[in-house]
Amino acid sequence: MVIKQLPGVWWGVLCTVWDVRTVLAIGVGAGDPELLTVQAVEALNRVDVFFVFDKGESGADLDEARRAILLRHAPGEKYRVVEVPDPRRDRQASAYTAAVTDWRDERAARLERAIETELTDGGVGAILVWGDPALYDGTIRILDTIIERGVVELDHRVIPGISSIQLLAAHHRVPLNQVAGSVVVTPGRLLARQLARGLDDTVTDIVVMLDAELVCTRLRGQGFTIYWGAYLGSDDEVLIAGELDQVVDDIVRTRRELRERKGWIMDSYLLRRART
Amino acid sequence: MVIKQLPGVWWGVLCTVWDVRTVLAIGVGAGDPELLTVQAVEALNRVDVFFVFDKGESGADLDEARRAILLRHAPGEKYRVVEVPDPRRDRQASAYTAAVTDWRDERAARLERAIETELTDGGVGAILVWGDPALYDGTIRILDTIIERGVVELDHRVIPGISSIQLLAAHHRVPLNQVAGSVVVTPGRLLARQLARGLDDTVTDIVVMLDAELVCTRLRGQGFTIYWGAYLGSDDEVLIAGELDQVVDDIVRTRRELRERKGWIMDSYLLRRART
Repeated sequence: MVIKQLPGVWWGVLCTVWDVRTVLAIGVGAGDPELLTVQAVEALNRVDVFFVFDKGESGADLDEARRAILLRHAPGEKYRVVEVPDPRRDRQASAYTAAVTDWRDERAARLERAIETELTDGGVGAILVWGDPALYDGTIRILDTIIERGVVELDHRVIPGISSIQLLAAHHRVPLNQVAGSVVVTPGRLLARQLARGLDDTVTDIVVMLDAELVCTRLRGQGFTIYWGAYLGSDDEVLIAGELDQVVDDIVRTRRELRERKGWIMDSYLLRRART
Repeated sequence: MVIKQLPGVWWGVLCTVWDVRTVLAIGVGAGDPELLTVQAVEALNRVDVFFVFDKGESGADLDEARRAILLRHAPGEKYRVVEVPDPRRDRQASAYTAAVTDWRDERAARLERAIETELTDGGVGAILVWGDPALYDGTIRILDTIIERGVVELDHRVIPGISSIQLLAAHHRVPLNQVAGSVVVTPGRLLARQLARGLDDTVTDIVVMLDAELVCTRLRGQGFTIYWGAYLGSDDEVLIAGELDQVVDDIVRTRRELRERKGWIMDSYLLRRART
């Protein structure tokens, strides 16, 4: 199957002709409104309805960041914001993947209802995604689910954004890969499982996301350098780098203090050792 | 060592006060001028001198793309463009990493001379990087080499950009990772070596870059889906997706035809199979 990407202008024309509702997953980058691409800014200004999942906990900060982005980049305010109540997610579930799937299906059903009632035929809806919709975000899968259900006819498009991984590298001023080397991007849970089985010597560069337990503390004495960052792209950004054995305690302490002060933490890190 | 990132405005002020030359590695995204971030556009407009490595082969197309970016995003033309002759790289060398290192050292020496002669104290120089400077690009390492040599005093900063990997995912409208899964980003050469040793069952999602030999042809019959893209982000973009066994011959043929027609090819792909 060959799909030729249509230039943006034709895509706009076609959607209008077809009279199909369109939903954009717009990556807005990790925190800083300056991280939006020109493409994302232009997309924002075509949107009739922004669908926002109503979050708990870290919701207030995210709301404020979203408002800052719209205020700066779509000042015309020709859009509406529609809140979609977020289902509660079972974070203690042992079957993590199944729990995520259930939660996503429920989210899809709620978003589907909101699209049906709030977006007119030919209208453009959007979901703003922190970082990049392609990395550790469920929006693309939710839209796929709605399309599979077939209740609402929908076209969709993904607009990439700068992820926190990229900010981590940029602000530490290091590449993510070594010369001709590979990089593994992994959630903390999966790295922990991998460590239990033993880490292959050929794995030298690891980016760790969503790691509530700082699995890196189990990697002392193995020649790793660590580049750690919290609240990347925001005014509260903190970076720590150095030989893992030397700085990991500092990272553990800093992370705990930041989390207590702000009520939530969002961090990631790159682990690197010499290639064999 | 804790490094607190300075907000952009202070960083600008400090550099002027210190009277140190600054060189920015600016990620301009993969091809389309719309992919620049607002941060990158603002950076472009602070630049006194753009240093451009003079390439062979694909040079003409890249030159044109660079001109298009500057014309659109820095129309004031308050900058100069300085060409730095590119050393010839031994692409046949058996010691690939060593060859890359030699070539980088020579590039660093040439850039250093250009910075010394063309950039005044307190001036801002820049190197435009296709995609993201953090992924399979040598610019950060070249700047590190210049700083280590210590001949020219230099401050540097990295501005992230949308990589072709992100366009690959966005235009195929798929995430790079499965739910709670990891992703390996790897050059083709390294994947070939890995396949010779046998691919671990836990490796289910692989992004392959810089793969002259389409190593994916060796993965028939293993349940992979492939998302392939060439000239991502440009008007010539081509996408092919499907079960690897079904579409890989089409990819091989399309890639050969495109390469013949244009004289060069730039492509990447995502391999995906069910998580065990």
